[in-house]
Amino acid sequence: MIRVGIAGASGYTGIELIRLLNVHPSVIISGIYSKSQVGTRLSQIYPQFSGLLDLSFEALSPDTLSEIDVLFLALPHGQAQAYYEMLAPLPLKVIDLSADFRLNRPEQFKRYYKDDHLLPHLLGAIPLGQPELFRDQIRNADYVACPGCYATSVMLGAYPLSQLGLLNHPIVVDAKSGVSGAGRGLKESSLFCEANESFSSYGTYTHRHVPEMEMVLGAKVLFSPHLVPMNRGILSTIYVDIPVTVTRDQIVNTYSRFYAESPFVSVMPELANGSTKYVSGTNRCMISFVHCPDIGKLVVFSALDNLIKGASGQAIQCMNIMMGLEETVGLPLIPHYL
Amino acid sequence: MIRVGIAGASGYTGIELIRLLNVHPSVIISGIYSKSQVGTRLSQIYPQFSGLLDLSFEALSPDTLSEIDVLFLALPHGQAQAYYEMLAPLPLKVIDLSADFRLNRPEQFKRYYKDDHLLPHLLGAIPLGQPELFRDQIRNADYVACPGCYATSVMLGAYPLSQLGLLNHPIVVDAKSGVSGAGRGLKESSLFCEANESFSSYGTYTHRHVPEMEMVLGAKVLFSPHLVPMNRGILSTIYVDIPVTVTRDQIVNTYSRFYAESPFVSVMPELANGSTKYVSGTNRCMISFVHCPDIGKLVVFSALDNLIKGASGQAIQCMNIMMGLEETVGLPLIPHYL
Amino acid sequence: MIRVGIAGASGYTGIELIRLLNVHPSVIISGIYSKSQVGTRLSQIYPQFSGLLDLSFEALSPDTLSEIDVLFLALPHGQAQAYYEMLAPLPLKVIDLSADFRLNRPEQFKRYYKDDHLLPHLLGAIPLGQPELFRDQIRNADYVACPGCYATSVMLGAYPLSQLGLLNHPIVVDAKSGVSGAGRGLKESSLFCEANESFSSYGTYTHRHVPEMEMVLGAKVLFSPHLVPMNRGILSTIYVDIPVTVTRDQIVNTYSRFYAESPFVSVMPELANGSTKYVSGTNRCMISFVHCPDIGKLVVFSALDNLIKGASGQAIQCMNIMMGLEETVGLPLIPHYL
Amino acid sequence: MIRVGIAGASGYTGIELIRLLNVHPSVIISGIYSKSQVGTRLSQIYPQFSGLLDLSFEALSPDTLSEIDVLFLALPHGQAQAYYEMLAPLPLKVIDLSADFRLNRPEQFKRYYKDDHLLPHLLGAIPLGQPELFRDQIRNADYVACPGCYATSVMLGAYPLSQLGLLNHPIVVDAKSGVSGAGRGLKESSLFCEANESFSSYGTYTHRHVPEMEMVLGAKVLFSPHLVPMNRGILSTIYVDIPVTVTRDQIVNTYSRFYAESPFVSVMPELANGSTKYVSGTNRCMISFVHCPDIGKLVVFSALDNLIKGASGQAIQCMNIMMGLEETVGLPLIPHYL
Repeated sequence: MIRVGIAGASGYTGIELIRLLNVHPSVIISGIYSKSQVGTRLSQIYPQFSGLLDLSFEALSPDTLSEIDVLFLALPHGQAQAYYEMLAPLPLKVIDLSADFRLNRPEQFKRYYKDDHLLPHLLGAIPLGQPELFRDQIRNADYVACPGCYATSVMLGAYPLSQLGLLNHPIVVDAKSGVSGAGRGLKESSLFCEANESFSSYGTYTHRHVPEMEMVLGAKVLFSPHLVPMNRGILSTIYVDIPVTVTRDQIVNTYSRFYAESPFVSVMPELANGSTKYVSGTNRCMISFVHCPDIGKLVVFSALDNLIKGASGQAIQCMNIMMGLEETVGLPLIPHYL
Repeated sequence: MIRVGIAGASGYTGIELIRLLNVHPSVIISGIYSKSQVGTRLSQIYPQFSGLLDLSFEALSPDTLSEIDVLFLALPHGQAQAYYEMLAPLPLKVIDLSADFRLNRPEQFKRYYKDDHLLPHLLGAIPLGQPELFRDQIRNADYVACPGCYATSVMLGAYPLSQLGLLNHPIVVDAKSGVSGAGRGLKESSLFCEANESFSSYGTYTHRHVPEMEMVLGAKVLFSPHLVPMNRGILSTIYVDIPVTVTRDQIVNTYSRFYAESPFVSVMPELANGSTKYVSGTNRCMISFVHCPDIGKLVVFSALDNLIKGASGQAIQCMNIMMGLEETVGLPLIPHYL
Repeated sequence: MIRVGIAGASGYTGIELIRLLNVHPSVIISGIYSKSQVGTRLSQIYPQFSGLLDLSFEALSPDTLSEIDVLFLALPHGQAQAYYEMLAPLPLKVIDLSADFRLNRPEQFKRYYKDDHLLPHLLGAIPLGQPELFRDQIRNADYVACPGCYATSVMLGAYPLSQLGLLNHPIVVDAKSGVSGAGRGLKESSLFCEANESFSSYGTYTHRHVPEMEMVLGAKVLFSPHLVPMNRGILSTIYVDIPVTVTRDQIVNTYSRFYAESPFVSVMPELANGSTKYVSGTNRCMISFVHCPDIGKLVVFSALDNLIKGASGQAIQCMNIMMGLEETVGLPLIPHYL
Repeated sequence: MIRVGIAGASGYTGIELIRLLNVHPSVIISGIYSKSQVGTRLSQIYPQFSGLLDLSFEALSPDTLSEIDVLFLALPHGQAQAYYEMLAPLPLKVIDLSADFRLNRPEQFKRYYKDDHLLPHLLGAIPLGQPELFRDQIRNADYVACPGCYATSVMLGAYPLSQLGLLNHPIVVDAKSGVSGAGRGLKESSLFCEANESFSSYGTYTHRHVPEMEMVLGAKVLFSPHLVPMNRGILSTIYVDIPVTVTRDQIVNTYSRFYAESPFVSVMPELANGSTKYVSGTNRCMISFVHCPDIGKLVVFSALDNLIKGASGQAIQCMNIMMGLEETVGLPLIPHYL
């Protein structure tokens, strides 16, 4: 059994990791870590764990990690880099869900996160924990940095376009996310009465996930996220300029081939729409298309569950690969739908 | 007092008309009409009207309309055209919220509504009930055809762009609507458990409101609507290609000038986002911008309440104009917010 | 025109007061007050007021109140009592929506609000701003203390039972409220992802509104509130032990007579259920019944909009009475339904 | 591997069975059955099954069932009894989620379901598929009839009270359910815009689950269900008259002992509230208490997921018992929470 630890287990990504890892057949959850809540039992924050998995938070240290094989860091940006030098020498694999090591240029980190990076030389040296695009680097890595939820949805939805030469022009991504993407922090825009019965845009052209997308896609992205009154799910609607010569079949075939060995990405040529409902509760990303050749546009829908394929599930998928397990083990494919 | 009648009063647009007209200071609701529910009292369908406005449905006929000054048709498409010849000779004003007389080309009606139009010669001859763009035609009309909710949001959000020469290229409209846009008809996609906790696209590039938009804007529109798990509200996010020479100030000034005499359209240069929450429960359309000159794109947000500015409120606004009242009378401007 | 001022205008009750008063035909909103936000414009917090009612917050003082006829206090408990001695000598009417002067016994205030009351001698001397029960006292008062939203729903739903001698035994009230009842403060239980897709009880038998109910009803109340994933609305389901001799007709007649002169309380003998949907957006309280004589129980449903009849609307109803206006003026009766 | 078949697989209970059984380690889903959809592939109705489990619907017949070990009937009432004589001789176990064999008196079936039962002699002879109360009968049964979702929540929440002699007086159950309890049928009350932003009671004292509860509890139940704008979850708030001599400890101990061997019922003495959020997505029923001795009342909260512990999960729990598996296998305990 793989002994895993989770730092930041009290956030939404953290409890989703716990939920999924708890039924993973090759894993035992051995430790949960926190700076501020050392000694608190998990069930004091979340009563649902009472009688099931009632660990207490420990401080993150070489000692408390001595029996851990894989450590998940579900921490706010800034904290993962601060732990890096303590973690690097330890005989464990680290799967970092924070933003700290996603980008490859220190000045971009500073621009988007308003802080100097503590370890700028490492930027670009740590593989991105996005298995469909970087499976081989992940397999041999001791530390991976998982991309953001929006970024994952856009990378998966748009990357194959590069093989058709369609990423030379800026693409427009109109993305929509459930509120859990904002985490459990207290802010007005996350209040029920503010988000409910409301649909809003925010962070158009300035969102922190943009540099991740652009880095991976090698394209300019006009990214426009919106907040949906629901808990889970991201739908990215991607608008691409295409020459009249690119056929629907070419597009479908390119995507299908590209994801042929990727069990969590489903190219759905029979669908003319995209929906978070088909993937909510799963580690799946569902891709569908509307081809508009007469006006030179292609619409790509990319749908995923922001907490699973966009965060905790993708992190476990990385763990599976890093630990030599079957990539799909322990990860749901059928949505809870309701 | 203006005596109004409402045909199709049992639908969502119908009860919204009743709610608003009931507190309109110059109006008395004198009749409600239905084919299938003659004799039924309104409170048998909607208990909230019990003791307040408990009219019974009558059949639509010259007789039952003899004391009506203004008739609102909140009917499914196909029915308004069937009543036209009965209504035309009567001494009343008709405000038609159906799709029957919005388009100007019979072949387009057939393509989108799958039926031959009964009165093709009238297409193009009836003013569009969209006051900000067609106020003068409405003022002198006896019959107006109000545009669809999505179409209203896109027309208002994009029309001023024509003055900047920005509608020569196709525009992309990523629109999102609350579920009330689908009406009260029984279909699976309108079920609570289907729409709730889900965000989906539908009808991309094939939606029936597209020809209305294209007719008014004189532009190609890639229209991609989405269903939001909320009752009310439309946010249209409009993506426009712009030359590098078009400044933010030019855009803001063009819109502000264009809507200077339109009390229900608010150009909001201080906002960098769009939200249905700011307009829900009002007859207001709120327009805001994100200018991205380095990639040659402009984002326009156009937000409105689909049941009010997108339907019943705009219809009352037309009535106000047609009856020589102050355009704003009886129409809310402050949202219920919660 | 009555010149009104609103202290605490930035909370949900405050903006609801503004929304309703803004269309009240006899009122002009002349001032908004705050301790912490002096100088801030309302539209900086709520963009929807931009261009409509863009007052700036002032400090509450005899000076700033010199041109005010009616002052609404939408303040947290503790603050209204602190202002009392400043306000009492001023030539204005005060309508206090806080909990400070609702109770009539200082030791109860201390027990439920954990603080000594600053003006214990006033407890019991200030009329309760609940027009259906205390209309005459309100008419002649300069200062009224409006009851809580839950308390209003229970008082209206249960008070007539006293005329049938049915309040000698404890009653059970299973109440359910939308999330706006918790206000705009930042706390985890008010986060979208915590309240959405969840139904929870809280504060059973310990809620602060219990002493108000018990004081007015003269009965013991087992009060069990629950949080509903919606913005607005309270439904109180009231369970009462009844002797087999009490008939349904007696109950309906007693309620109907009791509320015969109360335009905002609708006794609905034809309904066998209760729903917030029928009253959402209105100042109405709707009461319906299920009579179960074979097991000696009566179920009373009392539904209202917590922000309107449970707070801001009821406060305006008090103002209407205190200022000699028609009680119903400016207050909606038809729900927005959607 | 146990080969299971599912009749009625296209409803909400059906797809929940598929979702759970698909990851059950001892099960293979071998057939899905329908009268009206023979030949349709599951993914034509639910695209999420595309590429995962794309069975086609067959007619239910001895032939199509020849390789099935366990058959789940997720059918509307009336249909299960019609299949009974075909199914009884077959060498398979049947787990019936319909209402057809829950009651033990034909006249009650007629009263609540408005139809004569086809096999009245069987009523009372088929064990109730409620493992915590009828585990031994289930173990040896070939056919079990699972109780309704509300009934399960009330039985589990109230049954131990009989050991304290507290079921001699009528109990009051104020129950609240998510909308999925109404199934996928098309009716107005299940429309998004009707259920959303609304909280309503329905079927007070007349609901079909009442006779099941009363039969099992041997008590009179005043049952008052309500519809919550959420997909999943039931919270039953149970009000019981208690003598002053019954202590909180007695209650907690009685429940704890009663459910000591029941891994899916969690008695939570440390909780003073009940919430569907703690059990949503699980097969768990969570029970908590508020003891009010001074007014002679006890409040019991019983929370479960109506689709899992209230339907599909409980049915699988029955299967586990009937097939000699560990009772808990394949059934989730940690909620999806978000």
